[in-house]
Amino acid sequence: MQKYTVGIVGATGAVGEEVMRVLAQRDFPIKKLRIFGRPGRNDRSVGFKGKIIPVEQLTRDPHFRGIDYLVFAASGQVSQNFAHLAVNSGCIVVDNSSAFRMAKYVPLVIPAINAHALKSHQGIIANPNCTTAITLMALWPLHKRFKVKRVIASSYQSVSGAGQEGIDELERQIKLDVEERRMTNDRFVFAHQIAFNVLPYIGNISLSGYTDEEMKMQNEGRKIMDHPTFRASLTCVRVPVRRAHSISVSAEFHDTVSVEAAHSVLVGSPGIDVIDDPSGNRYPMPLEQAGHDNCAVGRIRKDCAFENGLSFFVSGDQLLRGAALNAVEILEELVKLR
Amino acid sequence: MQKYTVGIVGATGAVGEEVMRVLAQRDFPIKKLRIFGRPGRNDRSVGFKGKIIPVEQLTRDPHFRGIDYLVFAASGQVSQNFAHLAVNSGCIVVDNSSAFRMAKYVPLVIPAINAHALKSHQGIIANPNCTTAITLMALWPLHKRFKVKRVIASSYQSVSGAGQEGIDELERQIKLDVEERRMTNDRFVFAHQIAFNVLPYIGNISLSGYTDEEMKMQNEGRKIMDHPTFRASLTCVRVPVRRAHSISVSAEFHDTVSVEAAHSVLVGSPGIDVIDDPSGNRYPMPLEQAGHDNCAVGRIRKDCAFENGLSFFVSGDQLLRGAALNAVEILEELVKLR
Repeated sequence: MQKYTVGIVGATGAVGEEVMRVLAQRDFPIKKLRIFGRPGRNDRSVGFKGKIIPVEQLTRDPHFRGIDYLVFAASGQVSQNFAHLAVNSGCIVVDNSSAFRMAKYVPLVIPAINAHALKSHQGIIANPNCTTAITLMALWPLHKRFKVKRVIASSYQSVSGAGQEGIDELERQIKLDVEERRMTNDRFVFAHQIAFNVLPYIGNISLSGYTDEEMKMQNEGRKIMDHPTFRASLTCVRVPVRRAHSISVSAEFHDTVSVEAAHSVLVGSPGIDVIDDPSGNRYPMPLEQAGHDNCAVGRIRKDCAFENGLSFFVSGDQLLRGAALNAVEILEELVKLR
Repeated sequence: MQKYTVGIVGATGAVGEEVMRVLAQRDFPIKKLRIFGRPGRNDRSVGFKGKIIPVEQLTRDPHFRGIDYLVFAASGQVSQNFAHLAVNSGCIVVDNSSAFRMAKYVPLVIPAINAHALKSHQGIIANPNCTTAITLMALWPLHKRFKVKRVIASSYQSVSGAGQEGIDELERQIKLDVEERRMTNDRFVFAHQIAFNVLPYIGNISLSGYTDEEMKMQNEGRKIMDHPTFRASLTCVRVPVRRAHSISVSAEFHDTVSVEAAHSVLVGSPGIDVIDDPSGNRYPMPLEQAGHDNCAVGRIRKDCAFENGLSFFVSGDQLLRGAALNAVEILEELVKLR
């Protein structure tokens, strides 16, 4: 069996760590793993399958030659600075940032939906936004069956969406509240206290009044589903949950919907668990989805405000489905195509 | 100035306590305050404006005679058992439960919207559902201007919506997590751990797949706005916030909307604060609305999935706007009508 040299840029962040964990767990055929980190950061090495891997500094002229697949799990700026360099060094890049997602020559892929888009690329493949990816895992099977027209959604996004620092900030604020019964000005990641609060603003505002984070649902959804008239109105809200994002979705379809048909389409869809027995207190919850590969969908019902709509609630681990797992699944597809 | 004898049923619960606080704060003209509590409960007396008021037991045959206004702040069952008795004893009842809200002969009132409905009643007036009330505070001025067709909304409801016990349960779970780093089976109010989690299920499921709590937005909204074709699809979600509910709303209108017109309609609407400068990190948050009479609305933008829609986010103290404040405002209107 052929093995590959895999590199990870930003392996000491929340997503990078998950990429390593998923590579090991799924036993991706690795000949050599190379890790690139921020210059000046203290993490000198990381463990992988019982071995110690040194962290190489991401200097101006990094040595990418010999790497088959390079996963970028850092900022969009880092991807912009180094991805083309990596491609010129012969790497295939899987980029977790938003830097190249909407570029025409870059496939934007959720393997369960559009693995075929991987057949033609120019060296860079983009991983979708986490909230979009989790929503589309449930929406795509419904779209195939009923043809989605538009979606109105609101998110419940966990603090780890802002990295490990987001978790740390929530923990510190909670601890202060419990021990000293006080609010805190100790805010670095979020603009306001997130403990015991919700923040209806993620990303940067655009002229439309939506944030860039919110518009990803429509923009990336159109590209991934190859559905140029798809419309999506999303409100992104941060909630004091450690890990796993949830999305409340109302979707209108062209074809006649029924809850029974929706259930039978979703049960057995890849990467989806239907958890939908509200009176038995079974519904998707972030606390249960954290650490799980599959996304959970429930509260499936006919939408009472659309002629032909379905409402549902979906929860998924954004570090896995929205990032690391999706990236490794892309690697697996690329290996199949070789 | 005429003064009145006011009674509160359930004054030792979360809503009842707020009713007393609001009555005192707004200096409602009270001759005598009478308090009714659950038999067997330990609360023997409560303080009001520096006086000690004994708690009368709500036995099978309570002595309601002489009370001008009786506020029910207990369960729907208690209202059903005692409200008509109170009316027969000459009281005007303001009921916070859902027991009589949809009854034809019962006005369902948010004073800023339909105080005129108080002109004809048969002794019982109903206070609306909290999530509905907070949403309508922002929706009503927009409806008057643009004529609302339908709404798709998702809520972020605080644990005190389930009473003081809900707050206690969240606090216990948070404490266990911080001190012993463990989850807990100590669950009485909520079916699952609410700390670091969200629960997309509030109320009881109906055949439609919506919960009774979720259908209140459409049912009560139609009655309060006198708008029989109003459609509303709501997903109710519990979040680990102590107090104040938030709602993410997308609304479609008959008339042409603009963000500027929406702003100018909402600024100066009674009971509303427009907090809408996202890039300056100013938007509605439950942590800031807790304890405030006004509801905050922000993130106002043209909805990108509706031809003629607006999206916005509203936060309000559900114990005040959704319950105690609304009830006392009804009393004030009733006094004016005398």
